[in-house]
Amino acid sequence: MLMTTLSDIGERELIKRIRGLCSGNDGVISGIGDDCAVVCPPTDGNDLVLTSDALIEGVHFLPTTPAGDIGHKVVARTVSDLAASGAEPLWLLINLVATPQSQVEQLEEILSAANRTATKHNLAIVGGDTSSGQCLELHAFAVGQVPHGRAILRSGARTDDLICVTGNLGGSAAGAHLTFEPRIAEGVWLRNGGWATSMIDISDGLAVDLRHLTEESQTGASLVEGGIPVSLAAQEADDGRSGIEHALHDGEDYELLFTVPPEKKADLQLQWSKQFDTDLSFIGTMTAAAGTVECTAADGQSRDLRADGYEHFRPIDKE
Amino acid sequence: MLMTTLSDIGERELIKRIRGLCSGNDGVISGIGDDCAVVCPPTDGNDLVLTSDALIEGVHFLPTTPAGDIGHKVVARTVSDLAASGAEPLWLLINLVATPQSQVEQLEEILSAANRTATKHNLAIVGGDTSSGQCLELHAFAVGQVPHGRAILRSGARTDDLICVTGNLGGSAAGAHLTFEPRIAEGVWLRNGGWATSMIDISDGLAVDLRHLTEESQTGASLVEGGIPVSLAAQEADDGRSGIEHALHDGEDYELLFTVPPEKKADLQLQWSKQFDTDLSFIGTMTAAAGTVECTAADGQSRDLRADGYEHFRPIDKE
Repeated sequence: MLMTTLSDIGERELIKRIRGLCSGNDGVISGIGDDCAVVCPPTDGNDLVLTSDALIEGVHFLPTTPAGDIGHKVVARTVSDLAASGAEPLWLLINLVATPQSQVEQLEEILSAANRTATKHNLAIVGGDTSSGQCLELHAFAVGQVPHGRAILRSGARTDDLICVTGNLGGSAAGAHLTFEPRIAEGVWLRNGGWATSMIDISDGLAVDLRHLTEESQTGASLVEGGIPVSLAAQEADDGRSGIEHALHDGEDYELLFTVPPEKKADLQLQWSKQFDTDLSFIGTMTAAAGTVECTAADGQSRDLRADGYEHFRPIDKE
Repeated sequence: MLMTTLSDIGERELIKRIRGLCSGNDGVISGIGDDCAVVCPPTDGNDLVLTSDALIEGVHFLPTTPAGDIGHKVVARTVSDLAASGAEPLWLLINLVATPQSQVEQLEEILSAANRTATKHNLAIVGGDTSSGQCLELHAFAVGQVPHGRAILRSGARTDDLICVTGNLGGSAAGAHLTFEPRIAEGVWLRNGGWATSMIDISDGLAVDLRHLTEESQTGASLVEGGIPVSLAAQEADDGRSGIEHALHDGEDYELLFTVPPEKKADLQLQWSKQFDTDLSFIGTMTAAAGTVECTAADGQSRDLRADGYEHFRPIDKE
């Protein structure tokens, strides 16, 4: 099959094609093709939430990763950030970096997949930028909305709040890091019902992201190892590390980690089960011991959790 | 002098330092450090404008470019896009891509300069992303506002509208592409007074960006060569190309190119001169000949303008 490269068609033809691939939504006054996208917020009196993510070849995906997965992932990651704030998705911009040798067909497939995932979440791709660079990259910038003062922050947890997590953790490198479904319905529902006092999506790993919640909330946290939902992929990972180690330290689960007041536990379990098929697990308690994140094993032994999930720029520590 | 690299301090310490460098503004409820930034639009009933730009080492700046210029440029380019829509700046996110060997001191200087330029334009840096990659890159995403329905688009020009440009054109490679001041006050004033029917900022070169206006407005354009303001840098460029060639085809002027109804000319000149020191030039007329962009020289000869300003992914044509 004859492939077309970007150097064959140039930037302006590429933009024209991308413009043809992207759907709008109700609030879009002017989308791709102007200096700025112009949009009209659907409701007055809301706060906006803004988030951005990078997806870089060789870092977040491989040269062999299917184009459809790349396009899905770049959108799904930003939707997951919106979910963690309890926000409804509105608009998205994408900066595409590619090389003159990049294949046009692959880029069109990436953008088509991005648009499918965006549309599924009522997110309209309304603009962005194209530039040449050393490898393929996508940078997504999303805008969402929440009622004024209602965004769920990392800083709202209190001592004795229960720690909850959606789905199962660990082993995402086996595939889930590309194909996950962001928990947007769950995030919006948790905000709407006033359930969560703080929330984050697990991108750096449970141990690290829980540390983020404790740091911003000025609390500590205590996990019960037996309560942590370990994914099948983590249990089956044949690399000498246990399933629970994967669940604690792997990144890119994109599950929601949040805290709820203890008196709401029974009601949350009941309402959640009526609403979602997604698993909900109670995995520990926020504590007054600011700066401490510990995990208690079945034998009653507690250990401090290392904060060494994935961190850019550092050699990966495999101690 | 001992330099620190990113591999010495890691991503989390980098984010902590960036957070310390960025100022907020009135609308910021929660800035850097959460899954999303949470912001409150200052006024209800406005439209939002969204824009993004990339700044990539080896493409938009060199390894030897001063850090302060890089930081200024990444913000000033997005402010220039807001200006071209007639919008007031509100918030900014920056995706930083760097290598483990990147120097922390340089990155801090870039972000400090970015924050200075942002603050000058009432733009608050409220979030972003950090990731490792193959070279230094900054991706800026900006949000601005305009009264509902008042954004100036590329598509609003009509036949017989006069073509105007701010400042002087050409030769930006000599330095102006790094140090330019975005024409935000001029852009907002032109929108406020209802002067401009269409507008764009000159990033790809006068000939190409004028073509964008004609394509979106379904008109043609006719320039008068003698009216085009040629910068000193373009006149002095010692590369065998004339000053007017530079003014027509160089990119990155970041001046405003806009159209006004002919009957408003005298009043615009008068009001503009009261308001701004920035030069304003009338350089031609929009025509009914859709698809044609021509330029008439002093001898009365007209020629079609090639649409070959800078285009990513293409070998540069130096015919």
